Amino acid sequence: MSDKTILLTGFEPFGGETVNPSWEVVRALDGAVIAGARVHARRLPCVFGAALSELQRALDELKPELVLALGQAGGRSELSLERVAINVDDARIADNAGARPIDAAVVPGGPAAYFTTLPIKAMVAGLRAAGHPAGVSQTAGTFVCNHVFYGLQHALRERPAVRSGFMHIPLLPEQAARLPGAPASMGLQAMIEGLRLALTLALQTEADLRQSGGSLD
Amino acid sequence: MSDKTILLTGFEPFGGETVNPSWEVVRALDGAVIAGARVHARRLPCVFGAALSELQRALDELKPELVLALGQAGGRSELSLERVAINVDDARIADNAGARPIDAAVVPGGPAAYFTTLPIKAMVAGLRAAGHPAGVSQTAGTFVCNHVFYGLQHALRERPAVRSGFMHIPLLPEQAARLPGAPASMGLQAMIEGLRLALTLALQTEADLRQSGGSLD
Amino acid sequence: MSDKTILLTGFEPFGGETVNPSWEVVRALDGAVIAGARVHARRLPCVFGAALSELQRALDELKPELVLALGQAGGRSELSLERVAINVDDARIADNAGARPIDAAVVPGGPAAYFTTLPIKAMVAGLRAAGHPAGVSQTAGTFVCNHVFYGLQHALRERPAVRSGFMHIPLLPEQAARLPGAPASMGLQAMIEGLRLALTLALQTEADLRQSGGSLD
Amino acid sequence: MSDKTILLTGFEPFGGETVNPSWEVVRALDGAVIAGARVHARRLPCVFGAALSELQRALDELKPELVLALGQAGGRSELSLERVAINVDDARIADNAGARPIDAAVVPGGPAAYFTTLPIKAMVAGLRAAGHPAGVSQTAGTFVCNHVFYGLQHALRERPAVRSGFMHIPLLPEQAARLPGAPASMGLQAMIEGLRLALTLALQTEADLRQSGGSLD
Repeated sequence: MSDKTILLTGFEPFGGETVNPSWEVVRALDGAVIAGARVHARRLPCVFGAALSELQRALDELKPELVLALGQAGGRSELSLERVAINVDDARIADNAGARPIDAAVVPGGPAAYFTTLPIKAMVAGLRAAGHPAGVSQTAGTFVCNHVFYGLQHALRERPAVRSGFMHIPLLPEQAARLPGAPASMGLQAMIEGLRLALTLALQTEADLRQSGGSLD
Repeated sequence: MSDKTILLTGFEPFGGETVNPSWEVVRALDGAVIAGARVHARRLPCVFGAALSELQRALDELKPELVLALGQAGGRSELSLERVAINVDDARIADNAGARPIDAAVVPGGPAAYFTTLPIKAMVAGLRAAGHPAGVSQTAGTFVCNHVFYGLQHALRERPAVRSGFMHIPLLPEQAARLPGAPASMGLQAMIEGLRLALTLALQTEADLRQSGGSLD
Repeated sequence: MSDKTILLTGFEPFGGETVNPSWEVVRALDGAVIAGARVHARRLPCVFGAALSELQRALDELKPELVLALGQAGGRSELSLERVAINVDDARIADNAGARPIDAAVVPGGPAAYFTTLPIKAMVAGLRAAGHPAGVSQTAGTFVCNHVFYGLQHALRERPAVRSGFMHIPLLPEQAARLPGAPASMGLQAMIEGLRLALTLALQTEADLRQSGGSLD
Repeated sequence: MSDKTILLTGFEPFGGETVNPSWEVVRALDGAVIAGARVHARRLPCVFGAALSELQRALDELKPELVLALGQAGGRSELSLERVAINVDDARIADNAGARPIDAAVVPGGPAAYFTTLPIKAMVAGLRAAGHPAGVSQTAGTFVCNHVFYGLQHALRERPAVRSGFMHIPLLPEQAARLPGAPASMGLQAMIEGLRLALTLALQTEADLRQSGGSLD
């Protein structure tokens, strides 16, 4: 019997796509038991505000020990562990409800940023060692992905025992095949296996590795 | 009983790698029957000259109806059908025998270039429609890949019934996971399935599609 | 007579370079009067800690109304106005004193991030309209550039009347000419003219534009 | 008195642009004397066929000793000396007369390719040594640039004393400033100085350098 709970979130499609790899990947693990913890997958709307309401409902209901939100990052080629969420909504395109906030706060009066509480260095090192392209990212953008990441960290700010963070993932091959400019992609099974390993590492790592995941600029 | 023969070639590892996806992919189809044709896979040394001797032996022995040579293209993100081979060896790094030719002819006195005789537009269109990232490339470089491609087209220049060409493929995920700079990659199974479809299309397409695969520059 | 003061900072060379465009650009404007304000240029060591001590000395001495710190961003192709500084030092390479902090705070106990107080949307729009490639960036990295940017915003956190921020700039052509991989570059004169315009806009813009400078991921 | 003649060609704008850097750069040198040779600059239409008719008129009239055709390469960051022109027109977008040839020959019955007769390795080395980002390119694409390059080499195929080739150049900063995605650019004066040096090197180099300008793939 598993008494721990993992909450995974993925997004509905946006930006003209009919599929979102983040939802495909997390739904595949819904109900799975990973390192003794039961996975619950939830699909979030790609909508400022509504995505956070949905996330809050899931947090209240499930009271998870680990939360990983996932999102699609067109053009990225690896499993991308985000370091920091910033208190900004700045939308280059409209969300799925037609909203396009500019330089608005995710949480008015909230701190400028939150750091992930996941051991992202150990997760990246473990993923790479197992043959999964992975890296630390210094920005989750300013669209609904960053919005959910910031809202997640804000919601859990006083529960240090709960680890949480955000992972951007590449396009699926079938998405990349329809797009110009040869964007990178990653197969669904590889992403699912990578996610499973990432969650195991997140649960089993005590202290994060002291290993650079930095960027010069 | 299959009376047609497909020759596939892949390369041994080079440039510090311990694996070469081109050999991993073609060996997986060795002995398979695709659209009624039997696949023979051969591994070529990553060595100027010796690679072509080995290729010539395989052509003489097998007398294939279809030949596709494959090579690794670090950084590319799709199955990349090459349009043209040029009569130049110009090596930025040494080959596996330590040779580094500069501006030498692949075949002294040979024409400046050969075009593929594969229906590459139909192959790309068919691959994309099936969800495989694929594209036409206007250059196979100037290293051993282009050397083999040129030598292949030269060897078959008077056998118009034999279709032949070259496909560059991405790194495997486990290669990309060890490299800096987050290069793109593609899973082995996806490449094998893509190759199988590419060969089917190469065998079953009568006239190539009239569809641009061009580049502005 | 100009009674306003602008402080510009650039860095000494690092990472094997013999020149740093950020210092070349700001030294060229040392002593200039821009929109009625006198420019003072200071060179910072590319050293964690020491760079901030030097910056603090300049702030104390000059009491500037506007501060713009500049840094080199190898590979970027435009004048890049940074949105946010994060409270992390995470060095992929050693600084010029041999230090390589990993996941250390710039200011222990400081907030997770500071936003620029420059009107970066108006600056980008004005630069582009005048023909200067420019953009908003969501990350200044985790090396000495971000360190100085964070330290600058922290030092001025209680002086809202002083605008301050950070601009990453491309390599100089002579640097790019010596590097493999064809990195982008920008000519010195173009960068100086761009900087002059950026400063004018920073001084003369009342409220920033409501215009997206966001990123999807 | 200069008795040698250099023909430079640039293109009219295309693809929605109002300026083409290739024409801006060559017109700036029209009438100049470089290494004892007089420069004549001609503007070519960005039209398949018509561009070659115009080029042929200039060749007949001027009987130049050196010909360098230039074209815009959106996204490239350096002065790019082309190695090879291929006998293919394959247009992703319509030319300025609305034509969009696909897999047509530039010269029906012509060889598959022509190599440049410029000492491109020496030109690249000399440019880099003087601080100009420069490189050898293995493909000039399949649009009007490659069309003109192929037609040029074909027209001069029996005049080995005349050196000729093609140089792709980056966007101007004012073009890049209006485009999304932060494409690389190069300032007009830098391009003019680079071109002047490239021509001097083309005239004064006896035998080309034995130095790699190759690509792995």
